[in-house]
Amino acid sequence: MKKIALSLIAATLILDTSAVLADEGMWQPNQLPTITKQLTKAGLKLNPNDLTDLTGFPMGAIVSLGGCTASFVSDQGLVATNHHCVYGSVQYNSTAENNLLKNGFLAKSFKDELPATPGSRIYVTEEISEVTKLVKAGLTDAMSGNDRYHTIDKNSKTLVAACENDDRYRCSVVNFHGGLEYYLFKQLTIRDVRLVHAPASSIGKYGGDIDNWMWPRHTGDYGFYRAYVDKDGQPADYSEDNVPYQPKHHLKVNKSSVDDGDYIMVLGYPGRTNRYRTAYEVENQFTWVYPQAKAYREEVIKLIHQHSAVGSEARIKYESTLAGLANYAKNYGSMIHSYNKGSFQSRKQTLETNLATWISSDAKRKSQYGESLTGLNKLLKMDNKQQARDLIIGYLRYSKMLTTANKLYRLAIEKQKPNLDREHGYQERDIARFEQNMKAVNRRYDANIDQEIIVAMLTHYVALSKAERISSIDTFFGLNNTTTINFDEKKLRKQLTRMYKSTKLNSQERRLAWMNKDVSDFEKSHDPFIQLAVSSFKQRKVIEDKSNELAGNIQAYRPKYMQALIAYFNDNNLPVYADANSTLRITYGNVKGYSPQDGLTATPFTTLEGIVAKDTGAAPFDAPKKQLALINNKHYGEYAKKSLASVPVNYLGTLDITGGNSGSPTLNDKAEFVGLVFDGVYESIIGDWDYDTKLNRSIHVDIRYMLWVMEHVDGATNLIEEMDIVE
Amino acid sequence: MKKIALSLIAATLILDTSAVLADEGMWQPNQLPTITKQLTKAGLKLNPNDLTDLTGFPMGAIVSLGGCTASFVSDQGLVATNHHCVYGSVQYNSTAENNLLKNGFLAKSFKDELPATPGSRIYVTEEISEVTKLVKAGLTDAMSGNDRYHTIDKNSKTLVAACENDDRYRCSVVNFHGGLEYYLFKQLTIRDVRLVHAPASSIGKYGGDIDNWMWPRHTGDYGFYRAYVDKDGQPADYSEDNVPYQPKHHLKVNKSSVDDGDYIMVLGYPGRTNRYRTAYEVENQFTWVYPQAKAYREEVIKLIHQHSAVGSEARIKYESTLAGLANYAKNYGSMIHSYNKGSFQSRKQTLETNLATWISSDAKRKSQYGESLTGLNKLLKMDNKQQARDLIIGYLRYSKMLTTANKLYRLAIEKQKPNLDREHGYQERDIARFEQNMKAVNRRYDANIDQEIIVAMLTHYVALSKAERISSIDTFFGLNNTTTINFDEKKLRKQLTRMYKSTKLNSQERRLAWMNKDVSDFEKSHDPFIQLAVSSFKQRKVIEDKSNELAGNIQAYRPKYMQALIAYFNDNNLPVYADANSTLRITYGNVKGYSPQDGLTATPFTTLEGIVAKDTGAAPFDAPKKQLALINNKHYGEYAKKSLASVPVNYLGTLDITGGNSGSPTLNDKAEFVGLVFDGVYESIIGDWDYDTKLNRSIHVDIRYMLWVMEHVDGATNLIEEMDIVE
Repeated sequence: MKKIALSLIAATLILDTSAVLADEGMWQPNQLPTITKQLTKAGLKLNPNDLTDLTGFPMGAIVSLGGCTASFVSDQGLVATNHHCVYGSVQYNSTAENNLLKNGFLAKSFKDELPATPGSRIYVTEEISEVTKLVKAGLTDAMSGNDRYHTIDKNSKTLVAACENDDRYRCSVVNFHGGLEYYLFKQLTIRDVRLVHAPASSIGKYGGDIDNWMWPRHTGDYGFYRAYVDKDGQPADYSEDNVPYQPKHHLKVNKSSVDDGDYIMVLGYPGRTNRYRTAYEVENQFTWVYPQAKAYREEVIKLIHQHSAVGSEARIKYESTLAGLANYAKNYGSMIHSYNKGSFQSRKQTLETNLATWISSDAKRKSQYGESLTGLNKLLKMDNKQQARDLIIGYLRYSKMLTTANKLYRLAIEKQKPNLDREHGYQERDIARFEQNMKAVNRRYDANIDQEIIVAMLTHYVALSKAERISSIDTFFGLNNTTTINFDEKKLRKQLTRMYKSTKLNSQERRLAWMNKDVSDFEKSHDPFIQLAVSSFKQRKVIEDKSNELAGNIQAYRPKYMQALIAYFNDNNLPVYADANSTLRITYGNVKGYSPQDGLTATPFTTLEGIVAKDTGAAPFDAPKKQLALINNKHYGEYAKKSLASVPVNYLGTLDITGGNSGSPTLNDKAEFVGLVFDGVYESIIGDWDYDTKLNRSIHVDIRYMLWVMEHVDGATNLIEEMDIVE
Repeated sequence: MKKIALSLIAATLILDTSAVLADEGMWQPNQLPTITKQLTKAGLKLNPNDLTDLTGFPMGAIVSLGGCTASFVSDQGLVATNHHCVYGSVQYNSTAENNLLKNGFLAKSFKDELPATPGSRIYVTEEISEVTKLVKAGLTDAMSGNDRYHTIDKNSKTLVAACENDDRYRCSVVNFHGGLEYYLFKQLTIRDVRLVHAPASSIGKYGGDIDNWMWPRHTGDYGFYRAYVDKDGQPADYSEDNVPYQPKHHLKVNKSSVDDGDYIMVLGYPGRTNRYRTAYEVENQFTWVYPQAKAYREEVIKLIHQHSAVGSEARIKYESTLAGLANYAKNYGSMIHSYNKGSFQSRKQTLETNLATWISSDAKRKSQYGESLTGLNKLLKMDNKQQARDLIIGYLRYSKMLTTANKLYRLAIEKQKPNLDREHGYQERDIARFEQNMKAVNRRYDANIDQEIIVAMLTHYVALSKAERISSIDTFFGLNNTTTINFDEKKLRKQLTRMYKSTKLNSQERRLAWMNKDVSDFEKSHDPFIQLAVSSFKQRKVIEDKSNELAGNIQAYRPKYMQALIAYFNDNNLPVYADANSTLRITYGNVKGYSPQDGLTATPFTTLEGIVAKDTGAAPFDAPKKQLALINNKHYGEYAKKSLASVPVNYLGTLDITGGNSGSPTLNDKAEFVGLVFDGVYESIIGDWDYDTKLNRSIHVDIRYMLWVMEHVDGATNLIEEMDIVE
């Protein structure tokens, strides 16, 4: 396999001006030499070429936790990340007598370290190879969308399977620019992960959901893992005989932190962005999808509230679901607001007009890209025809019984096929996680609420036109001749009550047993949810196939559109970065405040005193008494910042980040660790679609706050000593 | 009468340092020469002596509207004030066909001007005379509190009556420093007041209750009246023959406005402050009164919400009551928060400790002031013994039927006495307003809600100890042996339902008829609310007398305490200002932002663009379409401010203001009109008790915004031409 040599150069979408916008962009490591000028201007002191070597310094110190980013901060495999990234492991080790979530945890020696939550992994990216040709092998212009979809899928699975032959590695094939290029990522997978330290949740989650996405912020969102390997230095399952992993590289920690205006960068694994969507896609998303999805979320939140008293067993089971629903209702609300108040849509339109002019001004371009946008949009419009139904079906998945039955039946179907032919989620490599999901159902399930969700979503469903409806579902619920006008909710409730009374899928034992049954067992079952899954499967499969057909066709068109866009940007001397796709990226910029509102300025640092000011004594504003006393006594130790006359807690940066960047180290101009990125401000939630230089701000835990809490509140001096601290 | 020559010099309460805090203080005009140094340092260009002449410039241009302040801004009696100060007159002239509240109003010529709401007055303060000796005539140390209270009361009423012999004047005796000194205020009273101009409410109230007390702010809170007099230039009732009043002085308007840091001052009539209360009073107020009152307010809000659907007739009737309840629940909430987070209480304690040390360090002081604080606190503690009951009785007054019955019966009783002996509110001069109140009852009354308020408050009442209860009320409601445990709410409701069924006090005609009946008519009445008023009167009067007895005793002690405090401040070279008491004051300071929260800075100006950003199209964020279009087109005319690249809308100042200052002109260093003060920020609500230099900020409409809207949105060029505009 050949090492990466990407020809892509990254880009900005905002193209009314020909100036490259600083700070925007999630750059692939190998792209950095192409933006040397910008990096130097922003303040980087290193040679950008030094940042391209995945196994060198500093990239070799950056790791993925799968969903979060982290970094080695000692030669003994000590890993720094966000508190919210180690949260599951703290929870896993908590007991009623020893509530680690509440009290925090500190291993004073290696032997005190606790196993992380089962399935925890540390991934070290060792190789990235372009595999576009291999993934596209066998594709023809004439083939159906479905065939194209499955060819790409199977080629990718084959590459992954071959790469994972060495079981020390996890591999993935990732598409860039909507399928214009494909890369194979090979990651060393450390399986023995241990919890080393986490502050109390009242520090690590200070402000909780209320402060989530907000500034001013005062969250100590950090925690530490340690990577363990066997005596030969190879990944291994947990064993007492394992030893700390000795990474080739780790980050130095600079306790001087940063000042307003300083260069900073974040190395990490951002999840998903949509910076290159078409104007049509954007409009549909912001004027239909997000508003409708927000309304459904709020409806489900309301019904959960109505059907579970605060503090009741049911409510406790749904707290996490509620948090997720509310989190994204707030997220969508912010994006809709930003969209309505800003110029995003009109800039998209302008870009497409300019692109069209550029294409039509040259015969060669015209023949090459002429149809790319219209062709893509035509497919996208087809794809959106059923979106009202698909969104309802999507929110029906909040019913655990429906989802469990569908998943179990699908597993029986997929197991009939050879492993490589199976759908994602049903391959051998997925079974362990599948089983864990089945075990977890009851922890987040209440029959009454589950039923209410079905009633609410079917109430929307019966408003759909006949063409959009799924007749087998109509038949099952006796809704064939039902519309909103004659919808008999009472009758539906009666049927559902019977279903919940008779189903056995609420038993963990039964669910696990169903994992080993075959299709005929399902067909014979008297369980009403399984009967529904079986009777509706064929039609649901038809819908899925149609969707794959379209996806396959889009896979043919979107790369063409991206090719046009990239050519256009490059012709305007603009580098092009790819949308985030959970692969290793670098974003750079500066420490900087912003104006969230006319008449208000967010200053770039918060201080310890802000913790006291916010504190109410009740969660999420219930800092430890010891911490409050230290602050009131101005016990800053060596961590006060002169210009603030206090210890900085969090700071703002202009970095272009998104989910997945959580836990990424924030590095200074010499690639020294000066904090952790853990969130973005409310006004930059739309950043997944549109980067606004004025409003896009990342939020970081200041290294000084981390060290101050570790030394003065938690006494984690052993870890401070273990790290290489410079200033 | 001798002209004012106050010997008092005003002071700051915060006395850990000996430096005078700039910006704090509501100064009497005659005090200004004593703080010349501070005024000059802040930037005043005039001689402070020029600000002491009530009939000279600029003080002669400042007028009171009774509750609001205003100022003459042309030689034709044009008066500028806040939109919320002319709101009643706009509402009064609105009809369904011609909704002036919604559309705004502009008289393009004098003859188009509309009469202000009945009872509107413009008061021009012409004389202030010290009358301490006259008010205290006949007081002896030996006399009872009740006698002292009534002696002071009668002396004051006598002075007022004599002064008001000339019916062009309204007079009042006002106490300073808790009764240490008394002054007689004589105000020329202009009775023909006309509405000249008000912008649409969507400008004048932009942001409504949501933005009330908040920053950032974008409110065009201005409006114009005109004063009319008879042909001889004397105050007269409305007549078509009246002519515009020609004030001796009016303010010039400086359209350059002000910059960050510039000197500004506000001349006006601040209502009430409590800066010199004792530590005991403060603690009781913030740890008991405000929290309890906030809880009752929230309870009443909740029950109104429960018993009136949105948009129902009942809800509409209670909108204004709800707004008032919510307004002060928010107000109290802010004050409680500031108190709990700040050092107010400990600074009060420190002051009292320092004062005690200062007193006890000198034999003469010891004999003169030794007992002042302990004596005062002893009385205050007695006064607070029944505060739980009194607060409940206070909120029972939200029941219109109870209050109406009590007031009517009291009127019959007071009418038996000579006019001067009657209680405030029941004298001849009060009857017109009394009648208006009786007429207005039904506009804000719903029997069901009225009843619910009684139920809610009696539920709290039965929790009181026997000693606190009023036995005649217990007897009336059959509650003599009732406590919380055996309270029979159902039975009470039954009785109340009967009462509301049979009472005739819900009829305007009957209420007005009762105004002319005598005590025996009341005693014979079968109306249940009147029966309750009659049967409980004696006990209520005993409580009132006790309260007057205490008040009289406090009137003997508080001046002693204030004397000690003033002597102590003066000994520390600190000038002393008196608490606000609705008399003419000057506060000065600078245009300045602040930090409402760690990590946030409020910048001193907002701009037009902020209006667009806040706009939702729905009230209270529904700026006129024309205005939004002008802003989007950057149609700033001559009013843009270079440093903002836009037109300033509102700005922040450090001025020490409170309710009653509304509508006060904001003047620059040359006493030119540069805006109107209309609110304070949320963090300075506690300012009525405690001025905090860091957080106390006044909010002003920028003159540039006023002129921009007048010229470009409303076309009020006639008014712009009428004013003397300089730059």
